[in-house]
Amino acid sequence: MNKVRLIVASLLALCAPAMAQDEPPTPDSVVAEAAPGEWVPIAPEDILVMELAPAADGSAREVVIQLLPPPFSQPWVKNIKTMARAHWWDGKSVYRVVDNWVAQWGGGDPELEMDPGPLPEGVVSPAEPYESTMICQDAGLDVTYCDPDFASPASPDPYVSTGMGAAGHVEGWPVAFQFAPEAETNLIWPVHCYGSVGVARDLAPDTGTGSELYAVIGHAPRQLDRNIAVVGRVIDGIEYLSTLPRGTAEAGVYAERSEDTPIVSVRLASEMTTPPAYEYLDTNSDSFARYVEVRANRHDSFYEIPAGGVDICNVQVPIRPAQ
Amino acid sequence: MNKVRLIVASLLALCAPAMAQDEPPTPDSVVAEAAPGEWVPIAPEDILVMELAPAADGSAREVVIQLLPPPFSQPWVKNIKTMARAHWWDGKSVYRVVDNWVAQWGGGDPELEMDPGPLPEGVVSPAEPYESTMICQDAGLDVTYCDPDFASPASPDPYVSTGMGAAGHVEGWPVAFQFAPEAETNLIWPVHCYGSVGVARDLAPDTGTGSELYAVIGHAPRQLDRNIAVVGRVIDGIEYLSTLPRGTAEAGVYAERSEDTPIVSVRLASEMTTPPAYEYLDTNSDSFARYVEVRANRHDSFYEIPAGGVDICNVQVPIRPAQ
Repeated sequence: MNKVRLIVASLLALCAPAMAQDEPPTPDSVVAEAAPGEWVPIAPEDILVMELAPAADGSAREVVIQLLPPPFSQPWVKNIKTMARAHWWDGKSVYRVVDNWVAQWGGGDPELEMDPGPLPEGVVSPAEPYESTMICQDAGLDVTYCDPDFASPASPDPYVSTGMGAAGHVEGWPVAFQFAPEAETNLIWPVHCYGSVGVARDLAPDTGTGSELYAVIGHAPRQLDRNIAVVGRVIDGIEYLSTLPRGTAEAGVYAERSEDTPIVSVRLASEMTTPPAYEYLDTNSDSFARYVEVRANRHDSFYEIPAGGVDICNVQVPIRPAQ
Repeated sequence: MNKVRLIVASLLALCAPAMAQDEPPTPDSVVAEAAPGEWVPIAPEDILVMELAPAADGSAREVVIQLLPPPFSQPWVKNIKTMARAHWWDGKSVYRVVDNWVAQWGGGDPELEMDPGPLPEGVVSPAEPYESTMICQDAGLDVTYCDPDFASPASPDPYVSTGMGAAGHVEGWPVAFQFAPEAETNLIWPVHCYGSVGVARDLAPDTGTGSELYAVIGHAPRQLDRNIAVVGRVIDGIEYLSTLPRGTAEAGVYAERSEDTPIVSVRLASEMTTPPAYEYLDTNSDSFARYVEVRANRHDSFYEIPAGGVDICNVQVPIRPAQ
């Protein structure tokens, strides 16, 4: 059964277990000591592998994206899987890169001489909201912290400051909550952090299909939360997007199509013959709780003043190649 | 007289003045409508111009850094000005780039076959703390919000959650505060955001000289606040650092010195014959208050749900070439 781990719960001054060595724990040392059973494999059907054209020196550029699990953004995730199976992105490009903002790729804009062609059958802009309803004690998500007492988190989030809200992790993902007055049904939504992948769209009420996606390559643009469908995160190869030249035309689109970075292919790992495999540190595990605590309170030799808190996007969920 | 503008003050649901057009204001439109008198020129002696070696296509790469004014980090700022006047960085390099973290340059490490040579006379690691004492009603900084009632900011900052704290802006810079119980003396310190420039150092108690500097090229690493001297921010050309290839050796240092990006020169604008000139939007101005409010509450056509809050590093102080 899944449990929600709120940051606030991890920031209580819990006594960490005694360390074998003298040096206080670091986030890295906590992760290194996590038990094998605390790591969760990522399903191959939730991994998207985007192969960009080789770099100028001929080296490969593979960007690996993990898609969000239920209940988050599933209509868009379904579209994206349909498009990947149809090889829809093959031959398209990364055509927009804005410093401290996003790198964007996909179908492109006919006005940019990028006719994307027809979408695969069944791919339409969903009418669903960007938030999910979280029913306390529901079988799907057993929420440990549905209690309204969580209205005063020790580690507050300025983006959920109206009413009772909090930020935390569920199923390995950073999320924000808004608690309903009766604590019966609550809202939960995935948040935008560095590396988050979202669905580009036109003005509301358009919600986008997923044919054009972006990855965040700067400070967390949390104002986009609940306004755009977050569908995943880059778990490997973000540097192949974050180091691309910044676009100089309107909104950071490249002025010439020749500046675009071509996409060779986008595939679901479940359809590849030799897929990459990854695992993440269970966000309900004891090691993850310690990891959050240590990220908020650094006592190793480099630090003199522990921060005493940490924002949700500064708690990167540990992800590694499957062991 | 300088006043402190806390984010919380700007987030109160103030009625914005009526707009001429129908479209609700955006951060950009608020900045565009700011009065000329609300812009503050940046003194040439507070601007550092770093010219990197030209890019592969021969184009120039100029990174412009604004140094912090008093009372912040002044011993390090003084060192940096001394080194710039001595042309100390000329011929050195950017030798470390870590994705979602920092690009670092300067004196380098003898172990990396980068003997930096002797520092200019008088440049030593300061013994001063990273925070400044802020005396309420002092002539230097007339702090509007020294009242302990600011213990419950509407837009809370998880990094100042212990006791009474808040984040806001003073003299055009993002800062955090810690209020003393009697509200007589308080602590104030500059925070790490995207583009912030800080002083690389060895393990504490070393504080660094400023001979090696870094710029943040990812999500705000706020855990470094009060643990490293923030000395400035990149105000132009950050993309020449953020797009550099990431280092593959230990801690993101380049494996080979041939991968480094050479520094042609670092000069104070006050010593240049044709210096660049910039101005920032006064953070005590009415336009800045509206800018913060609109950043926290987007009502223009793209947005459906205003966030209702904003974190300190998502309020980039508007800076532009002097008009």
